[in-house]
Formats: sequence, C-alpha cells, structure tokens
Amino acid sequence: MAEAPGDIERLIELMARLPGLGPRSARRAVLVMLKKRGAVMAPLAQAMAEVAATARDCARCGNITSADLCDICRDDRRATGELCVVEDVADLWALERAGVFRGRYHVLGGVLSALDSVGPDELRIPRLAERVREERISEVILALNATVDGQTTAHYIADVLAPSGVQVTSLAQGVPIGGELDYLDDGTIGAALRARRRF
Amino acid sequence: MAEAPGDIERLIELMARLPGLGPRSARRAVLVMLKKRGAVMAPLAQAMAEVAATARDCARCGNITSADLCDICRDDRRATGELCVVEDVADLWALERAGVFRGRYHVLGGVLSALDSVGPDELRIPRLAERVREERISEVILALNATVDGQTTAHYIADVLAPSGVQVTSLAQGVPIGGELDYLDDGTIGAALRARRRF
Repeated sequence: MAEAPGDIERLIELMARLPGLGPRSARRAVLVMLKKRGAVMAPLAQAMAEVAATARDCARCGNITSADLCDICRDDRRATGELCVVEDVADLWALERAGVFRGRYHVLGGVLSALDSVGPDELRIPRLAERVREERISEVILALNATVDGQTTAHYIADVLAPSGVQVTSLAQGVPIGGELDYLDDGTIGAALRARRRF
Repeated sequence: MAEAPGDIERLIELMARLPGLGPRSARRAVLVMLKKRGAVMAPLAQAMAEVAATARDCARCGNITSADLCDICRDDRRATGELCVVEDVADLWALERAGVFRGRYHVLGGVLSALDSVGPDELRIPRLAERVREERISEVILALNATVDGQTTAHYIADVLAPSGVQVTSLAQGVPIGGELDYLDDGTIGAALRARRRF
C-alpha cells in the first residue's frame, strides 16, 4: 500500500537507488526535503539538473568536467610527464585530496573483468597508449586498487606499454599510516615484509 | 582543497545536508549519479523539481498533496467521524502503511516545545478545534510520539478540546509486538504493567 502520492513515491524510489540510501532512509530524506521545499529541495533539484546537463568526461583523461578538457588537463603546470592511471573518478578525487601528485591522470573507467565481460576496449586502455606517445610521458604510475581485477589490469597495461619503453611504476603496498599490525590482513603484512626497507 | 569542479562540489554539499547522508556518502552518491547521468541523475533531478514545484500542505489536514485537498480528505468514505492527530506527515504515512485506520488525519506539523519556542499557533491546534466543530467529529485519537514534548502536546490538546465534549483517546502504550521484556526500557515495562488487561 502506497501511503504517499504517486509522484512522491516515485521520487522516494529514485532516491533509494543511490548508494548509502535504502527505502527507509530515502523516505526520511524525502520527508525532510518536503518540509524544506524552498530551502533544500528546489536548490538541490536545480543543482542536480545543472550537473546532469553539463557534466561530461574530459576528452583527454576521462575525468568529470563541464568543459571539453578538465581543469587538470588544461593546467600547463601539470604537464610534468608523469601520468597516474586510476580506475575511477573517485580515485582521482582521493589522490587530489591527498595533494601529493602534481602530474596528470588517466581514468580507465573500470577494470578488466572476465565476469562482467569488460575488455580493454571498454576501458580507456588504447587511449592510454596513444597519450604515452603523444604527450612525451616519462613515467606511468599505476594507482589501481589492490584487488584481483585491479592487479590483473595493472599487469595488462604494463604489457601494452612495454614496447613504448616508458617507465611503469605502481603504488607501494604496505602498512597504512596509523595502521596496527594486529588489525591488518595477512596479505598486507606479507607485502609489507617483502617490500621492507633499510631503517 | 576541492577536488571536484565547483558545481559538483555544491551538489555534494546540498546532498550532504539530507538525513542519512554525510559528506562521504554524499560524494559517493554523486559519483554514482555522475556515472549514470542519463539513467539516474536526470530523472531524479526532474522528479525532485516536479515535487518541489507541486507539493503543498493539504488545506484541511496538513498532509502533503499536489492538490488543494489530499487524497484522504477528498475520499468521502473516510469521513467516519474519527480524527487521528499526528505530529508529522511521516507518522501519517506510518499509520497508512499499517492500514488499520479508516478515518481522517490532522497533522500538527510539530509538537509544543518551550525550548524551540513552538507554541499552539505555530502548530495546527486552533485549526483542529475548528475541524472538530465543523466536521461532526465524534472521536479525536491522539497518535503523538511517546516523548515528553509529544505527551505535553497531547495534554494541551485534550484541554483545548474539553469544552467541545468530543471523545479524546490516545494510542495504547505497552510491549511492542515481538518485543522482548529483557530489551525494553523501564518506562515501557511500567506502562505495560499499569495498563494490564484480563487475559
């Protein structure tokens, strides 16, 4: 039995599809929005419509942008010859938040996955090889997730880039800052031990 | 340091104000929307804008509606003479979900609160007294939350309605269905014991 009018039920249903919101919390969020129609709901709807209309993938790196090229690709100071390969825009944002990388990015848009039948052409891997040639890239940093699919993709990309002679590196694996050994999984402890450094 | 373009940061900020979403989960929700701009983001923005433009309070009971009167107030079969007083539209929806009440509602829009300086005139309490006179109401059921403010409001309403002679009742308090005594608070156990019934 639907207790709310049809258009509100539809809004709740759409909200419930977002990650982190289930049917109950979507209902609660919509009720709060309904209470503050002018102050919350209308501006949110407008901001969402604007982003939906203007957002697109950067033609060069795959980052989200409202222009043809994203801010990072348009910034000449970031043409350092270093290219950081990430799976997703979320990973690019995480690296930008850390503020430690000054080069450019290449967003794959996913990882290779036999299960989901994602092959190299579904990702931006051919485009990556082109960029390495065209943009005088000296180092490709693979910042892919430390999952099976992520590491498979990293190996595949290293193979594809091998003929170009570009240096290919990947993020270090080990104990996270502030991490306690007691709470770490065996794989991380093993990786940290194998990659141990002189103190 | 903002890692996303300005309009997307603003959208994340607006989303983060919704209950159940913090800054991190709002960011994640926006990223998922950005990935599915056509299938998720555009329809959601449109549904939200439509509801924001058409939703308003029912002129009679305060329920959310897109017409002048809500579906329940327009349904003649629900003119049973029973009026259920609730704090909020969320409570009305909860009662409708249960499907056990066939009369009409009166949504106060809050409860009396000295702290937040909410007095009777900020709520729909004067309107409730009018409705009891105009609509031949035989019973007013107070379905307010079992909180201090809710119960204060219930007592105030009972006083206001006393001269009209209408019967005023309130929801039973006791052990919830499926509830285990071991997990119930002392107040609930006390209320259930005081209101014990012949088995």
